[in-house]
Amino acid sequence: MADEVILLNFWPSHYGMRVLIALEEKGIKYENKQEDFSNKSLLLLQMNPIHKKIPVLIHNGKSICESLNIVEYIDEVWKDHSPLFPSDPYQRSQAKFWANYVDTKVYEIGSRYAKSEGEEKEGAKKELVESFEVLEKHLGDKPYFGGDKFGFVDVALVPFFCMLYTYTFAGKFIDDEKFPNLTCWAKRCAKKESVSKSIPQESKIKHFLAEKGLLHRGE
Amino acid sequence: MADEVILLNFWPSHYGMRVLIALEEKGIKYENKQEDFSNKSLLLLQMNPIHKKIPVLIHNGKSICESLNIVEYIDEVWKDHSPLFPSDPYQRSQAKFWANYVDTKVYEIGSRYAKSEGEEKEGAKKELVESFEVLEKHLGDKPYFGGDKFGFVDVALVPFFCMLYTYTFAGKFIDDEKFPNLTCWAKRCAKKESVSKSIPQESKIKHFLAEKGLLHRGE
Repeated sequence: MADEVILLNFWPSHYGMRVLIALEEKGIKYENKQEDFSNKSLLLLQMNPIHKKIPVLIHNGKSICESLNIVEYIDEVWKDHSPLFPSDPYQRSQAKFWANYVDTKVYEIGSRYAKSEGEEKEGAKKELVESFEVLEKHLGDKPYFGGDKFGFVDVALVPFFCMLYTYTFAGKFIDDEKFPNLTCWAKRCAKKESVSKSIPQESKIKHFLAEKGLLHRGE
Repeated sequence: MADEVILLNFWPSHYGMRVLIALEEKGIKYENKQEDFSNKSLLLLQMNPIHKKIPVLIHNGKSICESLNIVEYIDEVWKDHSPLFPSDPYQRSQAKFWANYVDTKVYEIGSRYAKSEGEEKEGAKKELVESFEVLEKHLGDKPYFGGDKFGFVDVALVPFFCMLYTYTFAGKFIDDEKFPNLTCWAKRCAKKESVSKSIPQESKIKHFLAEKGLLHRGE
């Protein structure tokens, strides 16, 4: 029997994009079900009763929640194609450390930046730039965060970075000259079919942000 | 050559206790080096330059940071003795989900509770009780979170819960009658040598909290 793979998703979610990228990397067939936040489906409430949030992967009727956890699960189950983790435990621990850095620093600060105003926004912007400086240095001249192959940390960061770079705050604090490694890396990732298929078109995102009142002048 | 395992630690840290429990479960010989927060060692700054925090595991000269990441690493490297994860990918994903719940809910709210006053403290207390209700239900009548064997979620939660239950806020919101499963579980865990050796004695913790001005009357 073929695997039944359903993703409960909301297309502008960076977290959902991570799962899409992993599914695409592995060549897995899946159904991408869109959720309505103002009217969550019974399926979502049943499959993620604790957090009631997307993304949720439903694999043969069983649910897995939390984006990085889902990506790890996908890598473990479909292990023969495009591994996202190195096999060495030390290298694996380093990938998890940096993916955790992306979650607890970059995404957390990014969320604070998006929601705040005035001084608090300026503070968040400064912190976000600092976190990019750390990532710029860590990436160095490697093609991908794990080395020669696209992997877990790339999956974790690329939706946020591509959206930030290309669509919303471009030019505001992602400076090609200041972040040459990250800029090249983002362009390299965006050329991958798994990434380009999973990240929405600029016009669609801009329309969505404008509707939500989240697109400010000059952005 | 025997493995050289050094833990950079600070004995009252719940996060450090997780690593100690995992090392003890596996029967690994290690050196438990205490850090002074007001005067961090050069070794700590070298081994965790990003966060500059304990715990850090140094295994044959290489550092691994973040407590749950370290516990996973220990389980992967010393895999033949007392596995902390089930081998099935779905079960593994569930263990990671719940360990993440412990980190992002229980520890986060617990930290807010400890630092706040007045209404904010009351709010955090209510949230903490709610998170225990979720865990009480999830544990059910199983001996451990993963089933019959002590595992990853137990390692993640037990330092926080034992300290909370036994030493600091006992009787305030951990009610044996309201949380019979968690109470029995905590007592069951505390009987394990790996746990009892890793969690400091009540008198030592009380003295430490009193010195820091964190021990309130009746606690």
